[in-house]
Amino acid sequence: MKRVAILGSTGSIGRQALDVIAGHPDVFCVAALAANARIDALAEQANRFEPAILSAGTPERAGELRSKLTYRPKAIESGADGLRRVAAESDARIVLAATDGTVALRAVLAALESGIDVALANKELAVAAGALLFAAGKKTGANLLPVDSEHSAVFQCLAGEERGNVRGIVLTASGGPFWDLTLEQMRAVTPEQALRHPTWSMGAKNTLDSATLMNKGLEVIEASRFFGLRSEQIEVVVHRQSVAHAFVFFSDGNVKAQLASPDMRLPIGYALAYPERLPPANDCGRSSKDDRYTETEARTRAAIGLAGKATLAFEPVDHARFPALRLAYRALTAEGTAPAVLSAANEEAGRAFLQGKIRFTDIGSLVERALDALPASPINTTSLMAADASAREYVRRHLGEFSLT
Amino acid sequence: MKRVAILGSTGSIGRQALDVIAGHPDVFCVAALAANARIDALAEQANRFEPAILSAGTPERAGELRSKLTYRPKAIESGADGLRRVAAESDARIVLAATDGTVALRAVLAALESGIDVALANKELAVAAGALLFAAGKKTGANLLPVDSEHSAVFQCLAGEERGNVRGIVLTASGGPFWDLTLEQMRAVTPEQALRHPTWSMGAKNTLDSATLMNKGLEVIEASRFFGLRSEQIEVVVHRQSVAHAFVFFSDGNVKAQLASPDMRLPIGYALAYPERLPPANDCGRSSKDDRYTETEARTRAAIGLAGKATLAFEPVDHARFPALRLAYRALTAEGTAPAVLSAANEEAGRAFLQGKIRFTDIGSLVERALDALPASPINTTSLMAADASAREYVRRHLGEFSLT
Repeated sequence: MKRVAILGSTGSIGRQALDVIAGHPDVFCVAALAANARIDALAEQANRFEPAILSAGTPERAGELRSKLTYRPKAIESGADGLRRVAAESDARIVLAATDGTVALRAVLAALESGIDVALANKELAVAAGALLFAAGKKTGANLLPVDSEHSAVFQCLAGEERGNVRGIVLTASGGPFWDLTLEQMRAVTPEQALRHPTWSMGAKNTLDSATLMNKGLEVIEASRFFGLRSEQIEVVVHRQSVAHAFVFFSDGNVKAQLASPDMRLPIGYALAYPERLPPANDCGRSSKDDRYTETEARTRAAIGLAGKATLAFEPVDHARFPALRLAYRALTAEGTAPAVLSAANEEAGRAFLQGKIRFTDIGSLVERALDALPASPINTTSLMAADASAREYVRRHLGEFSLT
Repeated sequence: MKRVAILGSTGSIGRQALDVIAGHPDVFCVAALAANARIDALAEQANRFEPAILSAGTPERAGELRSKLTYRPKAIESGADGLRRVAAESDARIVLAATDGTVALRAVLAALESGIDVALANKELAVAAGALLFAAGKKTGANLLPVDSEHSAVFQCLAGEERGNVRGIVLTASGGPFWDLTLEQMRAVTPEQALRHPTWSMGAKNTLDSATLMNKGLEVIEASRFFGLRSEQIEVVVHRQSVAHAFVFFSDGNVKAQLASPDMRLPIGYALAYPERLPPANDCGRSSKDDRYTETEARTRAAIGLAGKATLAFEPVDHARFPALRLAYRALTAEGTAPAVLSAANEEAGRAFLQGKIRFTDIGSLVERALDALPASPINTTSLMAADASAREYVRRHLGEFSLT
């Protein structure tokens, strides 16, 4: 039984991870769970999986959590220290880092320093602190495993391959809900429209980032961390169907791709089970009409035309309407704290858009101005936190300049 | 320097292999070459690469070859024994088996029994004698490496994976030159039309087999040998562009694919270099307009839309117009000598078509009747040769029943 600890268990990734774990009770058990504010949901998860260690966002929420439990865990913690304990002191073999922002930085570092594998679903952490995390993992031999579908795709294509033989990779982007709009139409989109993603089921932050394509920009930086690639080795292509997730180009002219119907449980399951592959799960793979195939298989078979004509379509990114990708390449090239500034400014500007304070198209403008205003400095945990705070403050201070009328 | 011996060096695969070797003079050298009748071509190859051992189809041809050499090889052999010496006594680290039919069976077995890796481009050998070859390789630890683009694709996708985690594979078929014809139109096609392949550059036998889709049928059987899969685990989908070569479905719902522009030098190079990957070659990868990419990369990038909109299209096989695939599944299920009968009857009927003796659509009918008439028996080198001979004789005896008028 592989013991799993989850940071951010009540978010979209956390909940889908528990789905995977529930579908494979002979493979996984839950060692510890941490969530911030959704205490009812956390209590329900805890009562179902009965992990020994729990953590909530504050001591008050930890108390509320305790009152809702139907079993007695070994410990109920709170705050950043609770995250650290869940990650590094729960005897977990793998930690799923699925919180937002950089709150779990020290917890994830502690796990890696203790030699515990980390499945990294927290994109912002990979982008802002990737260099630190990979250095920590390298020291103890702990694996840092990608959870994003595109990075999982690259990682799967690299199994059994020498990293030095990779010429470059291509990440696919769904294009998000606004791919077919004009720039003028994009100026008028509402938060509600931005939160309806055509193919993926994700949290609000990821869904908005998919609409601006900043999601893909962050993934380009994340990919450079995970696979040790230079910015010019990473390309993006728009693929509306979200079935092919990435391509890897090898030195000898051969290319590998990974495909699967868009279902986050697949890359989550791959990361949690690594280096094994899971058997078909009961709930991930309810059998389709043709009971030789799981539902996932049936969808992928349909996408590649085994069940009728089908096409996989690809097209270049439109950088004029979607500046986020260009900004991400800029931050990646600048290095140091620049990716942290990009990520924090984007999160802050995105929040302002969702609150109705700025236009959709202002998000990119604010991020660009933050990058202009805050020069990159060398990275360590302190400079990182400072850059994050400065970027957020910069965005908040300049929101007023983007009038909605 | 990896020493390579080539059986069938003047055929399409043999010539392209020498292209790959010439493009990587720091990786490969030629240990031995064998060809049947194209003595001028063999002499030219020999004078260029100066291998120590040569072999021609007959003693007379060996004499003719000797008179055309500009260097003195250690030995010039002929016939089946010459093939054996080229394969097993040339101190080669890998033998490329690229002859037609089953003439090289004992030579390939001898190489495997001596622990020498074999890159198997001879489809008929894999189909008829796959079980024997894999048993021989297993005993000494010699690798049997696929050269067909589809099997190379599967093999590449299996790098770093457990074979037991494979749920199934999908091989792509170009559909050949007659994919858009009606059955009536197919009855009237000429040998000349059948030898024009839309995407691949191959020998006449392979090109004709691509037109009937028997090529894909033989590849289904070959795949079952190479990857230990049951017939129901192997599917075929038509993909006119020949860019995606195969898909591998894993137990956890993830799928890997291999892609590359249709160029046999890529799978040949992969097999010869295995377990390494080659660097970009001078002649395989002349740089395109954008000199960041090799020509191969530029073509593959175009196919996946990095350089403009593109689609990869897939559609199911039409079994009514293309019975070959059904016949191949039948032979695979019958096992024993049935695949050998299928392969030999197909070769003989194909030859009769190219000689203008029967119609294109009669090829499948003759193969089906040979399978009906010659029941499968257990396989060994003797029963194999006998089944091969009986199938050919059966087809020749029944040619007259298929009137051209």
